[in-house]
Amino acid sequence: MTSSDLYPVSRLTAVQEATAKAGLDALLLTPGPDLRYVSGYEAKPLERLTCLVVPASGEPYMMVPRLELPAAQASPASRLGLEFVAWDETDDPYAIAAARLGQVGKVGLADRMWAMSSLRFREVLPGAEQVLAGTVLRELRMRKSAAEVAALREAGEAIDAVHRRVPEFLRAGRTEREVGRDIAEAILATGHSTVDFVIVASGPNGASPHHDVSDRVIQAGEPVVVDIGGQLHNGYCSDSTRTYSVGEPPADFAAYYEVLRRAQDAACAAVRPGVSCESIDAAARDIIAEAGYGEYFIHRTGHGIGIETHEEPYIVSGNGEPMEPGFAFSVEPGIYLPGSHGARIEDIVVCTDTGAERLNNTPRDLVIV
Amino acid sequence: MTSSDLYPVSRLTAVQEATAKAGLDALLLTPGPDLRYVSGYEAKPLERLTCLVVPASGEPYMMVPRLELPAAQASPASRLGLEFVAWDETDDPYAIAAARLGQVGKVGLADRMWAMSSLRFREVLPGAEQVLAGTVLRELRMRKSAAEVAALREAGEAIDAVHRRVPEFLRAGRTEREVGRDIAEAILATGHSTVDFVIVASGPNGASPHHDVSDRVIQAGEPVVVDIGGQLHNGYCSDSTRTYSVGEPPADFAAYYEVLRRAQDAACAAVRPGVSCESIDAAARDIIAEAGYGEYFIHRTGHGIGIETHEEPYIVSGNGEPMEPGFAFSVEPGIYLPGSHGARIEDIVVCTDTGAERLNNTPRDLVIV
Repeated sequence: MTSSDLYPVSRLTAVQEATAKAGLDALLLTPGPDLRYVSGYEAKPLERLTCLVVPASGEPYMMVPRLELPAAQASPASRLGLEFVAWDETDDPYAIAAARLGQVGKVGLADRMWAMSSLRFREVLPGAEQVLAGTVLRELRMRKSAAEVAALREAGEAIDAVHRRVPEFLRAGRTEREVGRDIAEAILATGHSTVDFVIVASGPNGASPHHDVSDRVIQAGEPVVVDIGGQLHNGYCSDSTRTYSVGEPPADFAAYYEVLRRAQDAACAAVRPGVSCESIDAAARDIIAEAGYGEYFIHRTGHGIGIETHEEPYIVSGNGEPMEPGFAFSVEPGIYLPGSHGARIEDIVVCTDTGAERLNNTPRDLVIV
Repeated sequence: MTSSDLYPVSRLTAVQEATAKAGLDALLLTPGPDLRYVSGYEAKPLERLTCLVVPASGEPYMMVPRLELPAAQASPASRLGLEFVAWDETDDPYAIAAARLGQVGKVGLADRMWAMSSLRFREVLPGAEQVLAGTVLRELRMRKSAAEVAALREAGEAIDAVHRRVPEFLRAGRTEREVGRDIAEAILATGHSTVDFVIVASGPNGASPHHDVSDRVIQAGEPVVVDIGGQLHNGYCSDSTRTYSVGEPPADFAAYYEVLRRAQDAACAAVRPGVSCESIDAAARDIIAEAGYGEYFIHRTGHGIGIETHEEPYIVSGNGEPMEPGFAFSVEPGIYLPGSHGARIEDIVVCTDTGAERLNNTPRDLVIV
């Protein structure tokens, strides 16, 4: 895969068309995932303004601090034939952008634009209504291209390779932090450029879904939730959870783990074009609730994934968005018994024409190490 | 140093007083440096809202996703006696925050609040004018406490230890990337928790101030700009630049390096309470301009530093802000000859009652390796 596959030049035209169709006059994309999606440029988030201006009609251009011009020119954004508008240290880049934009009625701001920029844009474009660029870009970003699916598949294989090594690292007497350090090294050793999160949640810590690591010493007979991910060198994210047991787990744990296993399978089986996001959540939740563990499944079933670990679509009650081929997201139900232990099983899946393709494929049965 | 020294409980009261004095009804602090400064909580930046609400009068509280409640409770924020308002997956945390806030006229948003939050706050608080929390917090954040200066001093010593090792790593025949990798490891080995940037800019790359690393092979006789920094475990940032030469440098380089050396000294010598930020910029710039290199010094002289690498005050033309004891910032003039080479010398300095204390103290004369 090259950046031409992942960030095709044609995307900019598609974004302009979607911007016009949504009734926006322009998108203002500061550094972050929205800018990267449209241009391929992974710009540093700085107090100096970098902003890709995508008008609904007319020529897009990128405001760049003169110091960052070489980096912008060396990025995939240079393939787009954009004008780079370099500004100097004592210029006001917001005023320059506003003057070029002229009269605009409605602009879309990058979802992660900092307030220090959005409020300045409000000052220099006092007549313009501000909405999220996501209202335009979500439609494009949710539907992964074949190249994007291939990038996510590669990310899935890389994090699976790390999970396969977890039994080497995980044993009674080590701390969560020690195990986490080994996992982080393995994440970097398997093609990731960053370690985004490493959750090693042993025993009672497993009951806190967003625990990371601690100095707690792992004990024999304890379940351990291991939820890990990072950004692959191709720019796409990995995320997979498996629950391990250091020796034979407690009987109450083994009972609900089987329920969880069925719930996660059921949610994956529910994926196909046309079904709502919330129905996939319900497929997992109903099984867990019927088995009497409903109150212990305290989070949504999943989140979209791509160039961000968490992006649309969210697999959550209330989200009636219908599935389409190319949607990529996590299916990760969990059961958490406060004070005792917890379990979660997470795969990234892609909706295909016929169902779900799972991008994580290490064993989902409880792994006893 | 403990987090009680760096994030004193009394800070919250000071922030409330400053908020009232500035005529704001409340600050809304989402994850990022502003939240960390006020509470000590290094919250993950997530699509789920975490927000410390600091009313000008009345009790502050923190909106937290229920999943993040254990992390928030385990953070230094728990010392503040705050109420944590945990919200569930299907709640609207913005509506909850707005209902608790009631009628407000003016709110301050964390400088880095994402548009996905600032626009939602605009919807649920339609009558409230939004300004930057920085208008209140800058006054506090710029004036470093003794504990903060000690933390920055420790960061300075740590990055100096890395610079002292650069001659081991830097030699002809290696690529910038190889040298950069060794430096990154050394940054982590000297008490930093993150590597924020590693610039190894050899020969003509030295003429681009924000070059990072490349696969360019370093040649004998080339100057190399090395600008490095990270976040120390204490949460404060390091940043120091030295220019090295791999063997004897070209004569034209040696000539302007001496000019730069004098300019950097002059700017440091200009620091004392009461002088303007721009006069410190001018102290360096005038010397470089008089020597005929004015057009080759293409950036401001420096930036504030603390829990962010770049924060106020900026040492730039147009900034009339008078220096005060406790201001901490970089002094980093540079001279850049496009196509040939460049040089920069950077120290972090703190304004004391009598002048500048330099927190970086490795040799500033050209180091020939």
